[in-house]
Amino acid sequence: MKQEVTDWLMQLQDSICMALEELDGVSRFKEDNWIRKEGGGGRSRILEGTAGGFIEKGGVNFSAVHGPTPAFLRKEIRELKPDVSDEGTGEFFAAGVSLVIHPFSPRVPIIHMNVRYFRIHEEIQWFGGGIDLTPIYVVEEDARNFHGQLKQVCDRHHPDYYPRFKKWADDYFYIRHRDETRGVGGIFFDKLEASPQISLDERFAFLKDVGELFVPAYSRIVNKNRALPFTAENKEWQLMRRGRYAEFNLVYDRGTRFGLETGGRTESILMSLPPLAQWTYNYQPPENSEEEKTLQLLKKGLDWA
Amino acid sequence: MKQEVTDWLMQLQDSICMALEELDGVSRFKEDNWIRKEGGGGRSRILEGTAGGFIEKGGVNFSAVHGPTPAFLRKEIRELKPDVSDEGTGEFFAAGVSLVIHPFSPRVPIIHMNVRYFRIHEEIQWFGGGIDLTPIYVVEEDARNFHGQLKQVCDRHHPDYYPRFKKWADDYFYIRHRDETRGVGGIFFDKLEASPQISLDERFAFLKDVGELFVPAYSRIVNKNRALPFTAENKEWQLMRRGRYAEFNLVYDRGTRFGLETGGRTESILMSLPPLAQWTYNYQPPENSEEEKTLQLLKKGLDWA
Repeated sequence: MKQEVTDWLMQLQDSICMALEELDGVSRFKEDNWIRKEGGGGRSRILEGTAGGFIEKGGVNFSAVHGPTPAFLRKEIRELKPDVSDEGTGEFFAAGVSLVIHPFSPRVPIIHMNVRYFRIHEEIQWFGGGIDLTPIYVVEEDARNFHGQLKQVCDRHHPDYYPRFKKWADDYFYIRHRDETRGVGGIFFDKLEASPQISLDERFAFLKDVGELFVPAYSRIVNKNRALPFTAENKEWQLMRRGRYAEFNLVYDRGTRFGLETGGRTESILMSLPPLAQWTYNYQPPENSEEEKTLQLLKKGLDWA
Repeated sequence: MKQEVTDWLMQLQDSICMALEELDGVSRFKEDNWIRKEGGGGRSRILEGTAGGFIEKGGVNFSAVHGPTPAFLRKEIRELKPDVSDEGTGEFFAAGVSLVIHPFSPRVPIIHMNVRYFRIHEEIQWFGGGIDLTPIYVVEEDARNFHGQLKQVCDRHHPDYYPRFKKWADDYFYIRHRDETRGVGGIFFDKLEASPQISLDERFAFLKDVGELFVPAYSRIVNKNRALPFTAENKEWQLMRRGRYAEFNLVYDRGTRFGLETGGRTESILMSLPPLAQWTYNYQPPENSEEEKTLQLLKKGLDWA
């Protein structure tokens, strides 16, 4: 499974980068390989865009790391599986692909996707991941279509997946100190193990479908909105929303904090931060403005599908 | 002591705002009063500057809050003072002034100061605070002079203060995931209680001297550097250094995280974030550039005084 997942992840990174370059039309990803002292490493691909393309800054990172299991992970596993002895949790393996795209235009949403695999041994292994969309201006039709596509993929595998993972995303991508969701959400899931009803292969098949949905789902949104005009005010609102994105990633995102705390490669982890962001004290959008309408839609529990 | 400290803090906020407005020469602070549901509140003063002045965004906040002591604070006190019963830690009082100034010019450093008082009852009360300087380009003479002034104030009260509090600042204002200090440091201290050698009044006298050093120390630096020319490259470097500032505040700063976690007023807490910040993937300053020289000076343990 380890090899099979790793092969698929690397191929996914390749196919996504190729599709994004084609969609951008101008710029190319640059690759940085890095090695982790304790074991494993990664292949970071970053695109810093130029006029004509739609990507201002994007990162599509693959990593596969292994080594002695950190104390906090052993503790987590012990809580999850009290019958597993400490001797059985000595070494871990974790692999994944993570991406974040920051477009130039405030009419094109920021997007994030992550698919990952974690393994200690045959009895302790699982999949996790998610996709979520962060529009600068919420376009309801786009949010509905995006969630509709996610629901279709989920429903193909289990009727509970979409409602469970959609709620999980609402709860996860939530900026508590603002009482705002990061965007219109999507799906988020973790620790999908083999169960008597669902094999690990079936879990992996679900993960593949999620990973492979990214290109068609995002391409549709990009193509639909990239040519729309925008004003300097729209751009300023984008910079403020990117400030919220940075707040979420630095204050709450578990992947970011986990990476920074365990000595991951800082530049690969923080590729998710926006190229430019703004903080304006206590900004309140004008009444009945597009900005105010967007804020009203950055709430948990909206039924987009 | 509670009333005496509160009166002094409010007067300090007044005098600092007045001095900064005079130094800026153009813009004025705007005031927002807020009330904390559980008890107390604050007086936030924010200046969003315009051309001609030197402040791009600055905040000078006073707050005085009280109410039931949160669980994590009770735990901290129990660890510090094992002989104090839980019944004795029911209500807390905390007051302070916090300020952050983000200048327009990359030739003028960002500055932060905080002075605070915490009290449960007669036996559990202490002072804390600090000042630290974050130059976009380190000017060694300025760093030396700044630390020299801090040392003078410290030495007036206790020969151990400066070396202890300077090291405390080095350790506190440290961006671990970058292996960089936030700037050239300053002093940081916490939990200064009455001791057999030093009375609480004497601690308070030290805090006053720290708070009152801010205006002369920063005015000198501002006046010395505000008229210096700068390029678009200097400005871009400033935006990247402000990105680091945001990283520190959102990932590590205890005041920020404490405030956000305990439901403080978000806009007052996050006034410290820069007006505009930039993240460029894996930026490496050219060899022997001014930027590289600055990075080499963002290290712990440099003896500026």
